[in-house]
Formats: sequence, structure tokens, C-alpha cells
Amino acid sequence: MSSSSAAPWKQLILTSIEANSHLKHYSYFQLATVSSNNLPSNRTVVFRGFENDGDKILINTDTRSRKINDLKHWPFAEICWYFTESWEQFRISGVVDVIDGTNPDPLKLEKREKSWFASSLKSRMQYVAPSPGLPAIATQQPSLSPPLDPSIGPVDAFCLLLLDPDQVDYLNLKTNERLTFTSGAGIQGQKLWTSERVNP
Amino acid sequence: MSSSSAAPWKQLILTSIEANSHLKHYSYFQLATVSSNNLPSNRTVVFRGFENDGDKILINTDTRSRKINDLKHWPFAEICWYFTESWEQFRISGVVDVIDGTNPDPLKLEKREKSWFASSLKSRMQYVAPSPGLPAIATQQPSLSPPLDPSIGPVDAFCLLLLDPDQVDYLNLKTNERLTFTSGAGIQGQKLWTSERVNP
Repeated sequence: MSSSSAAPWKQLILTSIEANSHLKHYSYFQLATVSSNNLPSNRTVVFRGFENDGDKILINTDTRSRKINDLKHWPFAEICWYFTESWEQFRISGVVDVIDGTNPDPLKLEKREKSWFASSLKSRMQYVAPSPGLPAIATQQPSLSPPLDPSIGPVDAFCLLLLDPDQVDYLNLKTNERLTFTSGAGIQGQKLWTSERVNP
Repeated sequence: MSSSSAAPWKQLILTSIEANSHLKHYSYFQLATVSSNNLPSNRTVVFRGFENDGDKILINTDTRSRKINDLKHWPFAEICWYFTESWEQFRISGVVDVIDGTNPDPLKLEKREKSWFASSLKSRMQYVAPSPGLPAIATQQPSLSPPLDPSIGPVDAFCLLLLDPDQVDYLNLKTNERLTFTSGAGIQGQKLWTSERVNP
């Protein structure tokens, strides 16, 4: 077992991203949450990077999607990220901060705005489309959505999720190696990671 | 909205499997459960087919893995199956029947045995390997595992999961179409599926 204050699994992920980046779906992973009626919920979302130099994971989503209710009720999530080229799986569990336009923290609103402008115009268009999951009305064509001014900031439906990992399980199906990374508090209260090799 | 007693989403899945079957990972999906401390849990598992002519989904797993505890405590799961070639996502939620060697039902034990013999010898070897998730002992090399007689039936660690879907959410990212399928009881108590087109 070894310990470190820098997230030791982050370099593993960056290496996997590099090895799989020629595939369109390399940045897609599955996010599991628990709904308010205690049922597991699971959907594909897009990795939007790590926050600044840290290890928090950025995800964009729609305030009108069900995962927002799930996370406001119970903020825990587990990502399962399988890299199809390198045969590696990362399971990343942690607490999720839901940052929508009503957030009282100006620094968080700034992060949300940054993530909005980092998205493509096509991605932003999703947030002015009809409510996801509601019955589709035949006459409502996506092409009829209003055009979106590229210079305007995030619309109400745009929401940033910030997942703060506290446990990471890494599995390599090519080498048959598995490592678990667990965070704890160091003597000065700082986050400290320990890792251990476990059976696959 | 339309209704049917045959599972109308099954043909969609079979078509997706066909379109993606040239990819090794086409049969991998993510299974979310809720742990006994109420945390979401998410991992990649392998699709082992539908049970006979029905719509229950077969998954093989190890009785020593944590998902068994999750499911014995709370049998609900949601599969998220993303097909990377055809850009389709299926979210399949339902109740999971955990069938290990201690199951009192002879018919279920038969299903477990059938799934064991349908697995490759390499797959079966996992179940005689050291306990998954436990600290790895450096001297324990996989090559030192005892050989497995191909004619013997399932070992204790082998467990069949049978997921009985009650809701399916289908999303096609190429056509931007989304359909939800919900099961209910018909007049004679039979399972009846309704489907609805919803906003993506």
C-alpha cells in the first residue's frame, strides 16, 4: 500500500484518454445515481475534463433531466468508464455538486459559465430544445428551435455537475491488474490517497 | 402511445447487436445497483443473452463480488448499454434474481448450469481465481490456478443473474429519437408493454 496527496489515479486516466482519443466515444461514461424512490439510475454522459489542475470531474447536464432530482435528493454517484481500445475500466465514486443558474456562490456560477462557453454551439442547442423525457409533439421539429446567439451566457436549463472523487477502482483487462484508490484525511486535514493492488 | 404483450424493445436491441457485433465490446454494458449503505454502484458486465424466447437478460457473475451483496439487499438494477457503432443507448431497469448454487429451485439451478456450460473455459477460470477485490498476494500468479475439468458443472463462486426488465429507455443519437417502454399488467394479469415517443 502507498499514499500520496496528488490523486495517483489521475495520470492513469490521462494515459487512457490519450490511448483512446481517436475514438469518438472515448469521453462517454456511465453515471449511476440513486433516485428518490431508492432505485438505481444509469445513463451515458460526456466527460468535460478535470476542473483546473484538480481531480474533480466536470459534466454538463440539463436541469430538466431526472438525474438532477436524484442528485439533489442524494448527491452520491458512481461513474463507470470503460475504454474500449485499451480494455481499461475506471469506477469513480464521489459526491456531486449540482451547479445551476440559481446557485448563490459567484465562483461556482463562474465555473458554470466557463463550461457553457467551452461547449460547442451544437451542444448548447440541447438546452433550448423541448424538455427531455416529456412526450414528443410531432410538430415540434428540432430544426424549429430558435437560433442561439454564440455570445450569450448559459440558459436556465444548463447545469454543471462537479464530481469530487473519493474512491477509484481501476481494472486493466489486458494485464489483468486491478488497483483501488481510497481518499482519506491527512494530518493537516488535506486529502490523502492510498492505493492497493487487489485481485481482478 | 401503443401497447403490446411481446417486448417491443427487444427487436431494437437485437438489431443494435447485429449492427455492432463486429466490435469485441458490443456485449459489454454497465450495471448499476444500490449498495446496502445506499450508495450507487456501477460496473461493466457482459451480456450473456436473453433467457430462452423471453426478455429476461442473463449475466454471469462471482458470488464473491460486491454486487451480490447489493442485490441480495435490494434487487433493483439499471443497465446502461451504449452501442458505440450505431450511437444507440438502452437503459433497462428491472428486478434481478440472484441464482447461486444454494438456490432451492431445481429449475433455476438448471438455468445456472446451462449458463456455466455456455461460458468459455477461460471465463470459467475466473471463478476458481482468488477472491475479486481482496488484496492481491504477489506470489499468487493466475498461471498457478488449478486446471479446470471442462466436464464439471458450476463451481460455488459461479452465480447467474436474471434481470427482468420493467422499463426501457431507448435513445438514438444519430436520428435524435427517444422512446420509452413501460410494462404493466394486462386484463389477464399478463405483462403488457406500452411505448411512447419522448423528447431526447
